Amino acid sequence: MDKTSFSSCNKGKPIRCKAAICRKAGEALVIEEIQVDPPQAYEVRIKIICTSLCHTDITYWKLTHGPRAKFPKILGHEAVGVVESIGEHVDGFKQGDVVLPVFYPQCEECKDCKSPKSNWCARFCDDFLSNTRRYGTSSRFKDSSGEIIHHHIYVSSFSEYTVVDIAHLVKISPEIPVHKAALLSCCVSTGIGAAWKVAGVEEGSTVAIFGLGAVGLAVAEGARLHGASKIIGVDLNPDKFEIVGKRFGITDFINTASCGEKTISQVIKEMTGGGVDYSFECIGLASLMEEAFNSSRTGSGKTVILGMEKNASPISLDSRAILRGRSVHGSLFGGLKPKLDIPILVDRYLKKELNLDGFITHEISFEEINKAFDLLVEGNSIRCIMWMDK
Amino acid sequence: MDKTSFSSCNKGKPIRCKAAICRKAGEALVIEEIQVDPPQAYEVRIKIICTSLCHTDITYWKLTHGPRAKFPKILGHEAVGVVESIGEHVDGFKQGDVVLPVFYPQCEECKDCKSPKSNWCARFCDDFLSNTRRYGTSSRFKDSSGEIIHHHIYVSSFSEYTVVDIAHLVKISPEIPVHKAALLSCCVSTGIGAAWKVAGVEEGSTVAIFGLGAVGLAVAEGARLHGASKIIGVDLNPDKFEIVGKRFGITDFINTASCGEKTISQVIKEMTGGGVDYSFECIGLASLMEEAFNSSRTGSGKTVILGMEKNASPISLDSRAILRGRSVHGSLFGGLKPKLDIPILVDRYLKKELNLDGFITHEISFEEINKAFDLLVEGNSIRCIMWMDK
Repeated sequence: MDKTSFSSCNKGKPIRCKAAICRKAGEALVIEEIQVDPPQAYEVRIKIICTSLCHTDITYWKLTHGPRAKFPKILGHEAVGVVESIGEHVDGFKQGDVVLPVFYPQCEECKDCKSPKSNWCARFCDDFLSNTRRYGTSSRFKDSSGEIIHHHIYVSSFSEYTVVDIAHLVKISPEIPVHKAALLSCCVSTGIGAAWKVAGVEEGSTVAIFGLGAVGLAVAEGARLHGASKIIGVDLNPDKFEIVGKRFGITDFINTASCGEKTISQVIKEMTGGGVDYSFECIGLASLMEEAFNSSRTGSGKTVILGMEKNASPISLDSRAILRGRSVHGSLFGGLKPKLDIPILVDRYLKKELNLDGFITHEISFEEINKAFDLLVEGNSIRCIMWMDK
Repeated sequence: MDKTSFSSCNKGKPIRCKAAICRKAGEALVIEEIQVDPPQAYEVRIKIICTSLCHTDITYWKLTHGPRAKFPKILGHEAVGVVESIGEHVDGFKQGDVVLPVFYPQCEECKDCKSPKSNWCARFCDDFLSNTRRYGTSSRFKDSSGEIIHHHIYVSSFSEYTVVDIAHLVKISPEIPVHKAALLSCCVSTGIGAAWKVAGVEEGSTVAIFGLGAVGLAVAEGARLHGASKIIGVDLNPDKFEIVGKRFGITDFINTASCGEKTISQVIKEMTGGGVDYSFECIGLASLMEEAFNSSRTGSGKTVILGMEKNASPISLDSRAILRGRSVHGSLFGGLKPKLDIPILVDRYLKKELNLDGFITHEISFEEINKAFDLLVEGNSIRCIMWMDK
């Protein structure tokens, strides 16, 4: 990356560049020329180097109702970029820095950010998905006709340039290959954080993971690195185990379509002599959250909920089963504080401990972005990296 | 206590003594002469000095269905005694030791007992309420006609003498007044353990306690000792706050009958600017467990379930609310390992840190045991101590 490639003449001015616009829910994206405003106070404008597609983008792409169903919109939130220019009151970032935009905020100033208890940022999280923030509901994007193009969860990485609040930006070492780093801006951090911080998986423990997408595989990687002795993957697609899962230390596989008369939790209990120490739900289905809970060990079993329930259905738990020493934990971004913990993950990668290679199943040019949607929707990719300059 | 008062001529022989027998569910207990067999291997026969009545005794007293509804039976499980004789293979106990019988087992040998992760004892807990144990379903009690009198959760303290497996026995310092120590064999340990070990209440945190019986008040005492800044008591009876609750550091009270249009959780959220750090359900109602969860703070709120749901109803939780960093924890005996943690609580009492005085609202003679039932059922006592020799 040539860090001197930015012309200083753009500073404080709009930049014209290409972006993939979603004009209507569920329709193919269209590459268009847009205008990206300069960063305002506490904001940074970054040039995206590469981005990838996450299921959350798919969810927002399809969204037809509610305040978040705003179009036209620029999707994308897993990416790596380089700082092009900074707004007023921006400390800690300068032109040329390699950065990860992260949908999950860390203002570093609120009571929660200063507490080690959780990764909640009360100041920004309370409405972190509703497009209201330090600068309100405004956007930094316009199309060629001057129409506002909406932001997407404070990142909008499907654009050559984007503007991000510093609460959503993490500076990383330039030593890590950027496409590997992009994985850390959402799915991989979420899964590894859930295994390490929320569950606290330890040497010799047993683990069950419901859903072997990128988050579930990252849970496995986190559990493998912490010495779990048995890591059971649960999915409808056996390829997720055979082709990728084994690389992340998954030792056993349960095909949800092949349990016969038994429930998944019954199968897991039989495999583990009573249940796993840690179970993780990485899909977002209340019925699987309940099965994850039922799979956990009496006495000390922990269940971690990572999936956002698609229909906002409640989960129903056996009150007497929970009384016997079990617990259920929810977490966003795997309990990690982005600015504190992502650099640690980068370091673990650079020390050749953390395996990031297996997550990337495809690499294409940004122009081919709709192919990335097809691959993910059809279950044929884990992560597809899109390079902006290829 | 005169520790030399045991005649050695009873060793290995049955003892005849008085016990309060429950002959039929819900009927007044009858003081009768019974025969208590000598302890078998891994068992200790103890002379009860004083005992108290807990809601769990009431539950089992009323029980009319299921394998646990066995009569005649000797209830009681909160008590202090002195070792009269020991069976084979008993290490660590000798005649004259002051001991607490504890319904919750700790065998010290199984994988879970050796793990610091929880207080589960897989060896005995898996059936800890079903009257099957090291010695099967047998009992050490017979009435004057030779009929078997059933055990009650491995303690049966409503008898001058009882036989207890060493997994259910804790040796304590003779310095603590015995009636204060009796509180530590169930309710007070459960509440304090929940605040300290399960929740981890810390300096300046906010707490809500649903149900101000002995367990709920003990949660308050634990929270007070750990420096909680706001402790909200929730109960139907304002006397629980005015007369006893304030002694345990409860700062605010919500009368569940006076919330009007609002839910309890709405009131708590308003009082705390969004919810408490820790909420505790100490009653055993699914609807209150859900309200306790709804009262907890987004981001890091912990809910601890201590009450056994009367109807085994499931609890229904908002899956998206839990995703935002909340957690729900169940615990029996407050997450404490009896043999390890009860001596620590005794020590905290002897150092004048732990307040045990406020729990004891009544003291009567064992002969008056049915009065203790009336007081507790009518909500007029917290703990009523029954002295065997008065």
